[in-house]
Amino acid sequence: MRILLTNDDGIYAPGLRALRTELQKLGTVTVVAPATEQSAAGHSVTLLTPVLVNEVYEDDGTTLIGWAVEGRPADCVKLALLELLKDPPDVIVSGMNAGSNAGINVLYSGTVAAAIEGAFYKHTAIAVSLEYEKRIYDFATAAHYARQVVEQILAQKPATGSLFNVNIPVLERGPVRGVKVLPQNVTPYTEKFDRRVNPRGRTYFWASPEFACPEPHPDTDVDALNESYITVTPLQFDLTDHARLKAMANWRWQVESSPS
Amino acid sequence: MRILLTNDDGIYAPGLRALRTELQKLGTVTVVAPATEQSAAGHSVTLLTPVLVNEVYEDDGTTLIGWAVEGRPADCVKLALLELLKDPPDVIVSGMNAGSNAGINVLYSGTVAAAIEGAFYKHTAIAVSLEYEKRIYDFATAAHYARQVVEQILAQKPATGSLFNVNIPVLERGPVRGVKVLPQNVTPYTEKFDRRVNPRGRTYFWASPEFACPEPHPDTDVDALNESYITVTPLQFDLTDHARLKAMANWRWQVESSPS
Repeated sequence: MRILLTNDDGIYAPGLRALRTELQKLGTVTVVAPATEQSAAGHSVTLLTPVLVNEVYEDDGTTLIGWAVEGRPADCVKLALLELLKDPPDVIVSGMNAGSNAGINVLYSGTVAAAIEGAFYKHTAIAVSLEYEKRIYDFATAAHYARQVVEQILAQKPATGSLFNVNIPVLERGPVRGVKVLPQNVTPYTEKFDRRVNPRGRTYFWASPEFACPEPHPDTDVDALNESYITVTPLQFDLTDHARLKAMANWRWQVESSPS
Repeated sequence: MRILLTNDDGIYAPGLRALRTELQKLGTVTVVAPATEQSAAGHSVTLLTPVLVNEVYEDDGTTLIGWAVEGRPADCVKLALLELLKDPPDVIVSGMNAGSNAGINVLYSGTVAAAIEGAFYKHTAIAVSLEYEKRIYDFATAAHYARQVVEQILAQKPATGSLFNVNIPVLERGPVRGVKVLPQNVTPYTEKFDRRVNPRGRTYFWASPEFACPEPHPDTDVDALNESYITVTPLQFDLTDHARLKAMANWRWQVESSPS
């Protein structure tokens, strides 16, 4: 099996390294990942500037890990599929991200965007992220779980282009309680900014890390993850609101052409 | 009516200026937009660096247009709602983008992401983009159309948090034929990269502007836009594939905890 591995934390991130080690038990892993951290890159792509690419080797200097891309996670997947890989991958895995990608964070996530980009190209793609507390990450254990989930998803022979978002819960809270298949929570987070003034008197803001989704959201990825379950959410990328589309069928429009 | 206007082409972009002029016929317009071009920024947000903000005035030096934000389109909406605006807006408009945002380009679009961010905060939000040919943009005429569409959407009193994606067709091809409410096309574009080598022998790539969605896609935004219709697509941001979620109900999972 040929596996394309990417992420948004960058090609040297420990989460990617741990996941690569585990995925090598399933097949040949080629990495095409950003050269630098691209957290919260969303589905941005690089159109305005050139994208530099570098081969990256293991410490032996001869074993090719893959390519570091000075661009966005979605750029990595495009370049891998169109330019860098000799053969198309059987599956694309994105991660393992340092921090969960659940709820509406799915839309900010470069990790998930890379997987969506793969699905654009009709490849099966799986995003994997690890929730944390106190910035402790046991990526080895998390990757061990993630590999089992990836294996079991692929064993179901999902249709080409299937897209999955996998989150591993905080491991320090206790043993993982199992796997739950649940929808993405769509309730907004409460968030805030830290307002400061620079030495020249100009206002600037830091996005505060204190954002939360406080009320309970039963039967969603966010709650199950908090309850120490691994969550799996099948995703799609049609943003059309089909219910509202139907309701709009009887709206009447009248536009005049003359601007004056 | 209070209108928050943002975009992804930057606060000084002519498309935003034209739309501001038209929207001022509907109410008080406050602009919070990126300081620089953020095309294809997707739903990226700025977490790793501080976000500088500057007040921007009309040429008279006293009439406040709004704020230039050294960040992403979604940052602008967050900051507007949480920090900059004195009163919450009645509607958020994002645009007018130089170039359409139809089909899967909706997911790359900073213009649309800004509107989605507004919907996260339960505001009604409308993204507006103008298709072009040969880099000719008649933003004044396009904004005239866009204002009418915005007006007619709001006249329907959509539920708070409603989200709409509006595209204006190429105006040079002939008169606009009307308004169509249609889903987003989800067929991938064919795209390619231009591979080059820099003077130091390092490979780099430019995303080619030649991407296309060649086959017909009847009853989607992409085709109607090509046929000179203004398209309106109601959007939502639940990426869950609910059909596949149901199909996965009987998947059995078994994960072992010990990594060794």
